[in-house]
Amino acid sequence: MINQDNIVALATPSGAGAIAVIRVSGADAISIGASVFKSVRNKDLTKQKSHTLHLGHIVDDEKVLDEALVSLFKGPNSYTGENTVEISCHGSTYIQQQIIQLLLRKGCRMADPGEFTLRAFLNGKLDLSQAEAVADLINSDNEAAHQVAMQQMRGGFSNEIANLRQELLNFASLIELELDFSEEDVEFADRTQFRELLERIELVLKRLIDSFAVGNVIKNGIPVAIVGEPNVGKSTLLNALLNEERAIVSDIAGTTRDTIEDELVIKGIGFRFIDTAGIRETKDVVESIGIQKTFEKMAAAQVVVYLFDGLQLSDKTTLEAIKNEIEKIRNQYPMKPLVIIGNKSDKLPEVQVVEITSEIPEILLISAKSGKNVEELKDRLISFVNTGALRNNETIVTNTRHYDSLLKALEEIQKVRFGLQHNLSSDLMSIDIREALYHFGMITGQVTNDELLGNIFANFCIGK
Amino acid sequence: MINQDNIVALATPSGAGAIAVIRVSGADAISIGASVFKSVRNKDLTKQKSHTLHLGHIVDDEKVLDEALVSLFKGPNSYTGENTVEISCHGSTYIQQQIIQLLLRKGCRMADPGEFTLRAFLNGKLDLSQAEAVADLINSDNEAAHQVAMQQMRGGFSNEIANLRQELLNFASLIELELDFSEEDVEFADRTQFRELLERIELVLKRLIDSFAVGNVIKNGIPVAIVGEPNVGKSTLLNALLNEERAIVSDIAGTTRDTIEDELVIKGIGFRFIDTAGIRETKDVVESIGIQKTFEKMAAAQVVVYLFDGLQLSDKTTLEAIKNEIEKIRNQYPMKPLVIIGNKSDKLPEVQVVEITSEIPEILLISAKSGKNVEELKDRLISFVNTGALRNNETIVTNTRHYDSLLKALEEIQKVRFGLQHNLSSDLMSIDIREALYHFGMITGQVTNDELLGNIFANFCIGK
Repeated sequence: MINQDNIVALATPSGAGAIAVIRVSGADAISIGASVFKSVRNKDLTKQKSHTLHLGHIVDDEKVLDEALVSLFKGPNSYTGENTVEISCHGSTYIQQQIIQLLLRKGCRMADPGEFTLRAFLNGKLDLSQAEAVADLINSDNEAAHQVAMQQMRGGFSNEIANLRQELLNFASLIELELDFSEEDVEFADRTQFRELLERIELVLKRLIDSFAVGNVIKNGIPVAIVGEPNVGKSTLLNALLNEERAIVSDIAGTTRDTIEDELVIKGIGFRFIDTAGIRETKDVVESIGIQKTFEKMAAAQVVVYLFDGLQLSDKTTLEAIKNEIEKIRNQYPMKPLVIIGNKSDKLPEVQVVEITSEIPEILLISAKSGKNVEELKDRLISFVNTGALRNNETIVTNTRHYDSLLKALEEIQKVRFGLQHNLSSDLMSIDIREALYHFGMITGQVTNDELLGNIFANFCIGK
Repeated sequence: MINQDNIVALATPSGAGAIAVIRVSGADAISIGASVFKSVRNKDLTKQKSHTLHLGHIVDDEKVLDEALVSLFKGPNSYTGENTVEISCHGSTYIQQQIIQLLLRKGCRMADPGEFTLRAFLNGKLDLSQAEAVADLINSDNEAAHQVAMQQMRGGFSNEIANLRQELLNFASLIELELDFSEEDVEFADRTQFRELLERIELVLKRLIDSFAVGNVIKNGIPVAIVGEPNVGKSTLLNALLNEERAIVSDIAGTTRDTIEDELVIKGIGFRFIDTAGIRETKDVVESIGIQKTFEKMAAAQVVVYLFDGLQLSDKTTLEAIKNEIEKIRNQYPMKPLVIIGNKSDKLPEVQVVEITSEIPEILLISAKSGKNVEELKDRLISFVNTGALRNNETIVTNTRHYDSLLKALEEIQKVRFGLQHNLSSDLMSIDIREALYHFGMITGQVTNDELLGNIFANFCIGK
């Protein structure tokens, strides 16, 4: 059995607000709650039903600290699976501190980061990948990341893994049974069915492993390198991309963020725009280093946006320089998605538009200022993200730890399949099967260790 | 009847945390809540009891936005007095926005600042001074301010005012009754008892009005001007005063404030330390302006701390200059509490300590570095605050609006008393009584108007 000592933490963001919520969980959570609470209706908190709310005062002996609403949850029907009390108090930092200090004196200790969720995991309320999804959910700042975390938290990923593990486990036990009868040379496990299962597992694992490329960018944002000389309108472009989304955000008073900098959410997907110094040829040594860096940033990016001032194209030399640069990027990164944008198109005469389009056919002429073709640009950026899995609600792997375990499981599965093809003995095969089972179990937490748990939950915020 | 349209707001501080609470109040709050909620146990939210908690998912049609816990309050047994639903969701800004936007689409509108509390007032859950105390409570950052706000929110102040008003009202009706029988020259109101009541009211009003001086500093912090040359250890002193208190704060992980600057809480009372440039004589014009400003800051402060480097006293000229400056401050502000501090006393030889003490008897020799006598300094600072009322749990007025109304009520009461002394006719007296009643009513909100309410609640945070 796990430690059921009583932990307390502020569950809402720190700082002042209308209300704050302080969470207490543990074997004695309800009696501790009762010891600091005086119900307005003189109710005894320890005798109330689970999932009820009680108005009263938080009292330190005779001293009233606050009027508060107390939520009562009896284990196992709580988030942690333990007895839990949530105190919804007035949101001043002073009150929060006073109440938490009072609870510490009454026998609680401060919760470690993620300790409430750790307890939920240890009490079987969530498996490990679901618990990890809780942190992802709290950190999600765009639709795609939210959707993936939500799906994972609701068990989509775990179920897929757990089902495969169960099927593999069934075969494993049959094969291990054969070991007991090894003298008699019997086969309890149908080799054809087993091969089919292994192939199916391999397919699923490969799909999940492949999804990590998408999952990773969904979680961390898709890096986009913007290549362009100064003053071609890089920041105007970012603002234009930003505007619409920001308008939605600022509809809700109090939720506008101070600076969104270069991270934008476009149609629900996060993008990280990386400014570069451009790659215009120069004899200046310092600038050459700049060009070197620009190429490095392009290498790290998933998408390259090449931006220039459309008005400059009337100058033949500049046009040639631009065409030259585009060529250079293409040669360097033939497989990397490249968007070529001519800005300030609102000021271009029609004649020139025709000319430019014939010179650089794949150009997208936009006006960051008037908003012309900005929508088209968004569509192009989105088109580079394989959102198929997202649309089809398929499981997407976003967690490096899961990705590693999936790679290792795949390796073992391939060993087993090789063994099967070459009629390896059951005892040798069963070692590889056990290894595969181990890696499956690492994902959902059926196999675990303290160090692993420590690493996972240390990244949580306190109070969750 | 008041507007019962449905309002929504984030009640917890903005930003990401473990959980966030979104509040909905209004006639249709529960059915709106039900329209976005899918209980894990398939419960119909509209059929549940008040003060119950329900686990489920926040859904936008088929799309699951979050797993959430919903609290249900049925009017009039809720904070606002209306039907109320509180959604406790995962704390990402993205999720908060999505859920609020969903609720807006389902028929809510964004709540104005303080609108939940305004509704509580309009529905008779709180009187006006209690409602105002809610905002004070949320803003309180030290024990004294918290205690005063708490007392006011629990109705201590209102009760005192309301009782006096009721007694006055009783006499007012008797006197107005006399008007109906004016031909007959009867006296229904016992003049002796009436005089006693007026005297009692006057005493209470004067006490309350006097308490505002304390109340105001409790609410806003006591301004302390620190006068001293550069490098005498002003910031070390502030840190020394601060250290102990900050240690308490940082015991609770996640609650440390970034900078406390010059606002310190000493033994539960807030102090605002105002740095000055000192008043050392100079021929420099710019510095003369500095000295001018120092005097202005001293004038505005409640307490002056004169700080110098104890080590400098071995120099006779400096000693004389310091004595001279102390004299100057005394002459300028004879009534203002002055604390004279010699810093760096840890480095002073005993012989010199004796000498200094004979030269400047009231000196407090401290060492900000070693902490020597810092506690003594705190006691001295606290001794200037009249904490008697606070200790005795007496009503303290902290609100300028209340203070104004009390002053006006006192003026009217004094007029009535004058009229009584001079046998003024009942009809003339009753005008002044009505005025007094009006000002009493303004405090608790028995008399009110839209503009007043607008002003009061506009200063609240959203979600309260």
